[in-house]
Amino acid sequence: MSSEQPPAPRRARPSGREARQKARAARHVAPPYLTRVIPPYELLSEEGLQQVERHADQLLEEIGLEIRGDAEAIRLWRNAGARISGEWRVHVPRGLAREIVRGSVPREFIQHARNPARSVQIGGNHTVFAPAYGPPFVSDLERGRRYGTLEDFHNFVKLAYVSPWLHHSGGTVCEPVNLPVNKRHLDMVYAHMRYSDKPFMGSVTTAARAADSIDMCRLLFGEDFVAKHCVILGNVNVNSPLVLDGEASRVIRTYAAANQAPVCVPFILGGAMGPVTTAGGLAQCFAEATFCVALGQLERPGSPAVLGNFLSSMSLRSGAPTFGTPEPALAYFAIGQLVRRLGVPLRCGGNLCASKVPDAQAAYESANSMWPAFLAGANFVLHSAGWLEAGLVMSYEKFVMDVDQLGAFHTLARGLTLDENGFALEAFRDIGPGKHYLGSAHTMANYLTAFYDFELADNNSYEQWSAEGAHDQLQRANRRWKALLESYEPPPIEPAKDEALQDYVARQKQALPDEIG
Amino acid sequence: MSSEQPPAPRRARPSGREARQKARAARHVAPPYLTRVIPPYELLSEEGLQQVERHADQLLEEIGLEIRGDAEAIRLWRNAGARISGEWRVHVPRGLAREIVRGSVPREFIQHARNPARSVQIGGNHTVFAPAYGPPFVSDLERGRRYGTLEDFHNFVKLAYVSPWLHHSGGTVCEPVNLPVNKRHLDMVYAHMRYSDKPFMGSVTTAARAADSIDMCRLLFGEDFVAKHCVILGNVNVNSPLVLDGEASRVIRTYAAANQAPVCVPFILGGAMGPVTTAGGLAQCFAEATFCVALGQLERPGSPAVLGNFLSSMSLRSGAPTFGTPEPALAYFAIGQLVRRLGVPLRCGGNLCASKVPDAQAAYESANSMWPAFLAGANFVLHSAGWLEAGLVMSYEKFVMDVDQLGAFHTLARGLTLDENGFALEAFRDIGPGKHYLGSAHTMANYLTAFYDFELADNNSYEQWSAEGAHDQLQRANRRWKALLESYEPPPIEPAKDEALQDYVARQKQALPDEIG
Repeated sequence: MSSEQPPAPRRARPSGREARQKARAARHVAPPYLTRVIPPYELLSEEGLQQVERHADQLLEEIGLEIRGDAEAIRLWRNAGARISGEWRVHVPRGLAREIVRGSVPREFIQHARNPARSVQIGGNHTVFAPAYGPPFVSDLERGRRYGTLEDFHNFVKLAYVSPWLHHSGGTVCEPVNLPVNKRHLDMVYAHMRYSDKPFMGSVTTAARAADSIDMCRLLFGEDFVAKHCVILGNVNVNSPLVLDGEASRVIRTYAAANQAPVCVPFILGGAMGPVTTAGGLAQCFAEATFCVALGQLERPGSPAVLGNFLSSMSLRSGAPTFGTPEPALAYFAIGQLVRRLGVPLRCGGNLCASKVPDAQAAYESANSMWPAFLAGANFVLHSAGWLEAGLVMSYEKFVMDVDQLGAFHTLARGLTLDENGFALEAFRDIGPGKHYLGSAHTMANYLTAFYDFELADNNSYEQWSAEGAHDQLQRANRRWKALLESYEPPPIEPAKDEALQDYVARQKQALPDEIG
Repeated sequence: MSSEQPPAPRRARPSGREARQKARAARHVAPPYLTRVIPPYELLSEEGLQQVERHADQLLEEIGLEIRGDAEAIRLWRNAGARISGEWRVHVPRGLAREIVRGSVPREFIQHARNPARSVQIGGNHTVFAPAYGPPFVSDLERGRRYGTLEDFHNFVKLAYVSPWLHHSGGTVCEPVNLPVNKRHLDMVYAHMRYSDKPFMGSVTTAARAADSIDMCRLLFGEDFVAKHCVILGNVNVNSPLVLDGEASRVIRTYAAANQAPVCVPFILGGAMGPVTTAGGLAQCFAEATFCVALGQLERPGSPAVLGNFLSSMSLRSGAPTFGTPEPALAYFAIGQLVRRLGVPLRCGGNLCASKVPDAQAAYESANSMWPAFLAGANFVLHSAGWLEAGLVMSYEKFVMDVDQLGAFHTLARGLTLDENGFALEAFRDIGPGKHYLGSAHTMANYLTAFYDFELADNNSYEQWSAEGAHDQLQRANRRWKALLESYEPPPIEPAKDEALQDYVARQKQALPDEIG
């Protein structure tokens, strides 16, 4: 009466091996992408949204944004009605960037996978989860933290492929630093194509490497198909504050020109690449991202794009970036509202954290980042799995932990089922006051799909848990990723296509001397 | 450009000892309770809400709720217009329970603390965080898991007292199982009164013990004051499904009669104490809680009350209760909406988890539980700190970890500051494209309060973290609670009051033989 300890764990009937297998099968029906039935969270009032838009407009018009070293981009903006000051500073008349984006970018689009059953819908009320992107290091429980290699890269592509709740293979799942910096993109793109059949991302480090990525797509999907359909994303960071370097702008234009989707993401560490106050960072982020998405539309109107944001906070004690803090969460909610008004797909969030190990800090911070991203209505969530140490490390254990969490968001997205079976009035009538529902007809008919069951959670009694070795989640995750990797079988690929891709990679590698990063 | 690793940690200026002290001071200005400026999350449509209300009404009218062994409660319900079937079954006409609650319970009320600066506002857009309640076990990193003692109880009262983001001292912060079961409530209530000056909860295990708790309040606050003001809460669980035992109903009536606030909480493990489908559990929970709150109003119209819910999911694999799952999260959102329509304070959520240790599982699950509780608009969040192993364990380390998280919700609650300083237009003008904001006038003026900084997070570089011993959050939490406990100094109390309380406790203990639980 006074306390809320549940009864000791007991077996739901039917129990045993068969039930567990059935349950496991029921759990693993993961859709190719997530569809949100529940509404997004609305933080700001209409007046608040207008204030942010007004300030973003003012930044773009009065201060302007520099595109350093891309004369063609400057020309496109001038023709669109922007004023150019100096050589590279673009001043965009109020509302113009938003107007270009609103009128031109598809509200949602399909990114096609080579396996059509895995194509994803990006935009609208859909969410696509992709693994972490960019870490130079990898780590696992036994071997600790070390530089990533091509073998690690392959492993994470394989893990993403066999993970039920990841919809996307991602891009630079880790840096294969054992390969020449000017050629590793070829191996990365090939790995996504060969070892997975989920959609993926291409290189963005130079326009030439972006072009390589798209050329490889033409070999895989066919030239005609690529001309008409989105098959690759390129994640381009703004050089905040208010600068887009010429290489980045050419990469945006390269993807857009090929009718592929640039994901335009200001990365703003508040107090460093933007003001320390969140409203300012939000307006800046919205201005920069809208500007970059608009540039893609100037290059090719109607091409797909994703508007991104990456706002991070800073430790008072050390100046280091922090994650899972409430300020970025608030910014996520606001940018979700702003971007819905524009009608363009939104990238934000991820299972972000600063912790060096997959401990409680990592988990709290990741959940604190994913919850607001999800309720903000994020359409594309990069860094959904594996991210550790402020993005410097891709962790094998964190990867499978995060994936387990992603599954729960699929259930959350469906909302409550308010139908006759859900309300269970007949069961209430049958059972009445003071009796239990274990083993009742209604429970038997529903228990397999009633609750999301975290694969990596241990819900057993203390005694059973102790007898089984008293493992924490980190240790269970270690077993899990190894089992997953063991279960991996490559998806089939047409030998002719594979040969053409390998041939392309070999030729491009021969054409240039190695650069060591 | 392609990746989003932030720069290596660097010092914000000004740095050094002085800045850290200033920062620490700025961080620790915790209000006596939290006020939400941000709106709650609205999950269900008007139609959905009506469906739940209709089903709850139907449960109360058609099936009814039994109050087993409290003839006075039956009499009150009969007089209010309910039909009684058999000896104890109360059938409430449609809408009557909600009508009683809506017309009578205060929308918000103050629970007074003996230190007026720590009194809390319960209801409206306020949230009060209280520690975990009821665990028979405690644990810490060195001594492991063991039965709780009065010393542990004192420790957690002291920790709650010195913790900045906990507004409330709670109730049974752990069971002091070394004391006789029929007398330990005296020591518990005395400890809250003596070792803290935050508001607290009284005994609910029998009506006589509830009366003891209130009598002790009369000694501490004065009889007149207690007659007119709420100074104590009593957390009463429904014996779900659809039963309120006579002792529980007498406890509700005891608190209400004294103008104190019962917190009425159905504890429903889906598939055991209610149907396995969430809509049914939600309707049941809403029906049961409304019924119990209404009972308090029949006893004393206008007395304060809190409507609670505790819905838990179940593991498919073992039948054990699970936490941090999406189904209770959805129920939180819905019940928040339903309860706002009634205009009564809501209890839900907490940092709930099933993990045996404060690891990543514990943290993910806790955040997955606290986020929806907070956005649902919970007014009173029991189990905000320390809860482990499905509530069987109060953990010293988890306690301080959770408190650190509670601080972040204070920042979240304030929302975005959309003013001139927040938008930082002058700073954008001063700094322009491509330069950094570190050390700028705007950053200097704002950095101390710009970002919530988790006390227990390590955001340092890998090298520094390694040099400092490579501790995970669990180890840092272990140091933290010891330091906090060391820093504890008891709040002053009038010696005459203390003597009266001690005298009361001694007399009540002498009046009865010990019962061993």
